[in-house]
Amino acid sequence: MFFASDNTSPAAPEVMEALIRANTGYAASYGADEIMTRVRDRIRTTFEAPEAAVYLVPTGTAANALSLAIFTPPWGSVFCHRNAHIEEDECGAPEFFIGGGKLVLIDGGHARMTPEGLDRAISFTGRAGVHNMQKGMLSLTNATENGTIYRPAEVAALTAVAKAYGLPSHMDGARFANAVASTGCTPAEMTWKAGIDVLSFGGTKNGLMGVEAVVIFDPAKAWEFELRRKRGGHLFSKHRYLSAQMEAYVTDDLWLRLARQANAAAQRLSQGILQVPGATLQHPTEANAVFASWPRGGHRRAQEGGANYYFWPFNQSLQGPDDALLSARLVCSWSTTDEDVDRFLNLIR
Amino acid sequence: MFFASDNTSPAAPEVMEALIRANTGYAASYGADEIMTRVRDRIRTTFEAPEAAVYLVPTGTAANALSLAIFTPPWGSVFCHRNAHIEEDECGAPEFFIGGGKLVLIDGGHARMTPEGLDRAISFTGRAGVHNMQKGMLSLTNATENGTIYRPAEVAALTAVAKAYGLPSHMDGARFANAVASTGCTPAEMTWKAGIDVLSFGGTKNGLMGVEAVVIFDPAKAWEFELRRKRGGHLFSKHRYLSAQMEAYVTDDLWLRLARQANAAAQRLSQGILQVPGATLQHPTEANAVFASWPRGGHRRAQEGGANYYFWPFNQSLQGPDDALLSARLVCSWSTTDEDVDRFLNLIR
Amino acid sequence: MFFASDNTSPAAPEVMEALIRANTGYAASYGADEIMTRVRDRIRTTFEAPEAAVYLVPTGTAANALSLAIFTPPWGSVFCHRNAHIEEDECGAPEFFIGGGKLVLIDGGHARMTPEGLDRAISFTGRAGVHNMQKGMLSLTNATENGTIYRPAEVAALTAVAKAYGLPSHMDGARFANAVASTGCTPAEMTWKAGIDVLSFGGTKNGLMGVEAVVIFDPAKAWEFELRRKRGGHLFSKHRYLSAQMEAYVTDDLWLRLARQANAAAQRLSQGILQVPGATLQHPTEANAVFASWPRGGHRRAQEGGANYYFWPFNQSLQGPDDALLSARLVCSWSTTDEDVDRFLNLIR
Amino acid sequence: MFFASDNTSPAAPEVMEALIRANTGYAASYGADEIMTRVRDRIRTTFEAPEAAVYLVPTGTAANALSLAIFTPPWGSVFCHRNAHIEEDECGAPEFFIGGGKLVLIDGGHARMTPEGLDRAISFTGRAGVHNMQKGMLSLTNATENGTIYRPAEVAALTAVAKAYGLPSHMDGARFANAVASTGCTPAEMTWKAGIDVLSFGGTKNGLMGVEAVVIFDPAKAWEFELRRKRGGHLFSKHRYLSAQMEAYVTDDLWLRLARQANAAAQRLSQGILQVPGATLQHPTEANAVFASWPRGGHRRAQEGGANYYFWPFNQSLQGPDDALLSARLVCSWSTTDEDVDRFLNLIR
Repeated sequence: MFFASDNTSPAAPEVMEALIRANTGYAASYGADEIMTRVRDRIRTTFEAPEAAVYLVPTGTAANALSLAIFTPPWGSVFCHRNAHIEEDECGAPEFFIGGGKLVLIDGGHARMTPEGLDRAISFTGRAGVHNMQKGMLSLTNATENGTIYRPAEVAALTAVAKAYGLPSHMDGARFANAVASTGCTPAEMTWKAGIDVLSFGGTKNGLMGVEAVVIFDPAKAWEFELRRKRGGHLFSKHRYLSAQMEAYVTDDLWLRLARQANAAAQRLSQGILQVPGATLQHPTEANAVFASWPRGGHRRAQEGGANYYFWPFNQSLQGPDDALLSARLVCSWSTTDEDVDRFLNLIR
Repeated sequence: MFFASDNTSPAAPEVMEALIRANTGYAASYGADEIMTRVRDRIRTTFEAPEAAVYLVPTGTAANALSLAIFTPPWGSVFCHRNAHIEEDECGAPEFFIGGGKLVLIDGGHARMTPEGLDRAISFTGRAGVHNMQKGMLSLTNATENGTIYRPAEVAALTAVAKAYGLPSHMDGARFANAVASTGCTPAEMTWKAGIDVLSFGGTKNGLMGVEAVVIFDPAKAWEFELRRKRGGHLFSKHRYLSAQMEAYVTDDLWLRLARQANAAAQRLSQGILQVPGATLQHPTEANAVFASWPRGGHRRAQEGGANYYFWPFNQSLQGPDDALLSARLVCSWSTTDEDVDRFLNLIR
Repeated sequence: MFFASDNTSPAAPEVMEALIRANTGYAASYGADEIMTRVRDRIRTTFEAPEAAVYLVPTGTAANALSLAIFTPPWGSVFCHRNAHIEEDECGAPEFFIGGGKLVLIDGGHARMTPEGLDRAISFTGRAGVHNMQKGMLSLTNATENGTIYRPAEVAALTAVAKAYGLPSHMDGARFANAVASTGCTPAEMTWKAGIDVLSFGGTKNGLMGVEAVVIFDPAKAWEFELRRKRGGHLFSKHRYLSAQMEAYVTDDLWLRLARQANAAAQRLSQGILQVPGATLQHPTEANAVFASWPRGGHRRAQEGGANYYFWPFNQSLQGPDDALLSARLVCSWSTTDEDVDRFLNLIR
Repeated sequence: MFFASDNTSPAAPEVMEALIRANTGYAASYGADEIMTRVRDRIRTTFEAPEAAVYLVPTGTAANALSLAIFTPPWGSVFCHRNAHIEEDECGAPEFFIGGGKLVLIDGGHARMTPEGLDRAISFTGRAGVHNMQKGMLSLTNATENGTIYRPAEVAALTAVAKAYGLPSHMDGARFANAVASTGCTPAEMTWKAGIDVLSFGGTKNGLMGVEAVVIFDPAKAWEFELRRKRGGHLFSKHRYLSAQMEAYVTDDLWLRLARQANAAAQRLSQGILQVPGATLQHPTEANAVFASWPRGGHRRAQEGGANYYFWPFNQSLQGPDDALLSARLVCSWSTTDEDVDRFLNLIR
């Protein structure tokens, strides 16, 4: 019953097997390994983007910060939701890699921006010329921090606003697989066909040990990315171990299968919680995370029974009357089992 | 016959087994995993440094740049050898993480600084007050880029110069194991007992997939390191996979055993090359790399026979008379076998 | 009738005379001039702060950015009002000089923060440890961007919130003179006695050509300031010309006399506008700027009559019915005359 | 007898008069003043560069650092002489504004690079691809730090090397006027006709209070310069006071007349010193600085007689035998008189 985060889950067996296979003999370093050639090809095929530049980095923060840095000058503003990972959970990595920059925060229910909110923020930025930070780029997170998703048409509506100002668009896809699995769209429909210029294609939260791909749909930025990756300390010498993980991930749709399992577990969990008298959802369950409230008594039994999850927001307490509602975030992963979910539901009921 | 770099070698079997063991069930993320607790303890014991702060990062460039950044302000100078990895092979990562900085380059034979050369460079720096970059810190590489080593007394002589100016000292130990194995000293003797304040304790080149420890002997800098690591994108969520590799590395002296194998292979190679008529060494073979010259004919046969290594410097050619001497760098790793070495020697003879 | 900004006004005659006097013979450079010694003494006396470090820089943006940079690490958050000059009008200079940083924006009427709003913002920041930008410092603007002021007790209430979290406080005093003149308090009461650690003591908007003093009440930060000033390109070689302006400014309370003139002109203007039927103030007139609405007809006559000022917000138009209210910002300076004001009032009435 | 630096001299009378004239009434701020329009036109005419972008900043360090930053990415190397002001006297301002960068130091007599030395440095840089800092740009100083000059053909030879690698070229012209006056060439011949892309056109050392123009021959970089200037805190609100100084400077060739006076004083001084038995020049006297050695007795008499100058290098002493040679730097300015020079010569003889 580990629902604290998808990053507490292990690597998928296919991934471990790929690592073992890769650990034979000598291999060219720094991304010149043969596995990476196959990874590049497969990701290009998966995204129907034969020209895309594809790179591997070890963390989502690196993927995001590097993706933003190649498109945003030091005086550029990045337009993102107030709850975006790049704002809340990266200790200023975007500003560090951009060499300045400013995140302009946009409100919106369920961690989703609206085109109107985005347009307002962009049009306001840089209105006084040289005195202001300039318009930079859009960054949206899909699936969002609230376990909701943007469907391709919603992505397209946001990037259209950005494009109207000449701005590029980034998608933080730490949970991209969950978003694609949820909608049933193709990776291309969710990204470049919807106006995305660069994607952080997450693997770590979805069955890898620590690999994210950055997919740059316009390869003109490739060399700058390589320099920034190296100088950020993110170019692996024994790169084959990143490649091997990613190859397993994009082979036979493993990434989608793992995400579907996680999403299905979240659905089971979400629907089960709603059976508890008084329970409500804070956000619709569209990917692999459930944001729900139920009575304190159920929380107490769950935590005494060994369930592991966060109150959301943090500052709530098990002390107090049993029937008061407390809210929580519960994140499922590829390794969450029906048994885990059902044990949990039995505790809170 | 892969002598291009130690980073083309695979991970040691003990490391892979540790990864497999670690891949079970759920684990706390971001370094709060139990394996990391053991790693920290073991490294502290290994270095006789019960207060040391110990962190894991995925690359040597990250280890070095973060180590320098916690001790050097943006207006600080880092004193290093002209051939140091931080100068030649990190695309400016130190300057990026420091937020400025300047590497002051010191000459010296076999990639080693002398105390006199260091003293001259430090005393010259910052002599005109606010107009100059200020004195910052010492960084030395051990084993060096030329396959030589600093013995503990030589390290102490250099750090004593730095300390006379109040400056801290960093050791880039990407090949620390090779240096310790070569001298037979203890890790403590090579580091804090010789005046080192922070060590990049390399693992990747010596049998890991991609893990380096940073050992900060003064824990007052620990929190700043954590913030810089996070904001540099180097804090792993599934940290257990770094921890597991490092635990294997520091268990039963695996790190020293692997380094001894690499050093022994280099000795066998070096001595064999010297049997070739006309052959000479550019640098003494003290760790796991051989820098040697031998006639072009031998190079031609070696490369036709499948040997993999770099001319050093790069700009030499197989075209030309057979008896002209060409120089090369040959790097051995834990996985270099006697058979590899002997096949190579048979080709060049 | 130049009400566009106080920075369109000329230098005061006393300042020009001081420049002429300073332009004789040779003088030590880089701040070692004798005039600077007197300036330092006089500012320390004026602020009852005999230990304060005092430096001169040419622009308000430099004064602010350097003041913030010596107190905020690259991962630190600066808490300021959403309309602060550092957020809206410096093209990211704070982030540039800090080497990252993040401005956390706080709402509040009339460009003033409340202690409650500040407390909420600080307590929220850094709540998830290493994942977040950390709490950094408070920056408040006095007089504010809306022509209002913080009285010493209000300043003290805000810095008390910051201090409760161990955070230092900066005052952007581009219009410090106007704030002090408005309240009648002493400079010490407005700053260090109210918890301010560093002040941008503005001169340019109030009769100088281009000089601001930075007053650092804790001199421990002095040397870092000097290095950052130099490396920011803000250390003048012919420093005497900055010193001379500032000496005139702080001699015989010139700075206060000029600010009183500007404030009095704003009062006359504000009260005159309120005589216009339908006119209202957006913000109370407490310093040298008036934010007011009056019917479009009056705006049309004013602008046809040669008055120079900004609509506030910008996106309003002279096209449309005469009786609709349009809002404007009108800034007075030391050189605004009663005649200017009265001519203007005659036009809009 | 003030020979310590040209920056200890006052502003020329024409400059002060221009300031007084400019100090009338209201003026548009931030460079939109009418004087700046004339300055821009006049500098374009002076340089025969009708498209050039022209900006004013207050210090030479700002001019240099901004000029480099618009042409060099954070991973770029700036090729300069080891004694360049950007290396020795700006406390890392280039690295700060570039956001990293590395100055690659080139040796050469009399503070002059040779094309061969430059070519060697450039070709060496970036030879290992992504692992290295990349080739960035050339920066040369004219007149040099040793009082020598590059003639237009010498400038062209150096920029030709840079251009062969596709690199742009910067001229640090803090003493540009002295160099042009010395050669008799035109400003265009010394700059864009010789391959210079951006010039720091110094005024401060040659009769202004604190103004340098940056002349960007390719206006495509203009907007980026404006943003960097603002964010560096170098955009003056009361810009007219910079404009007025620069207008005086470029009117009726004042800049050349002042430089000719300084150069002539240096010639008189240099030739006079050579009359002293034992005296020698360290560097030819080609601009306004003299680097010479003469017996200690003469130094002692000069300093007792009130002469003000630096030993060069610093670490020499008046203590010791009278006939030992000590070397010094003596800098003349527009305000150095024949009488100053002759009094000095009388003392050292």
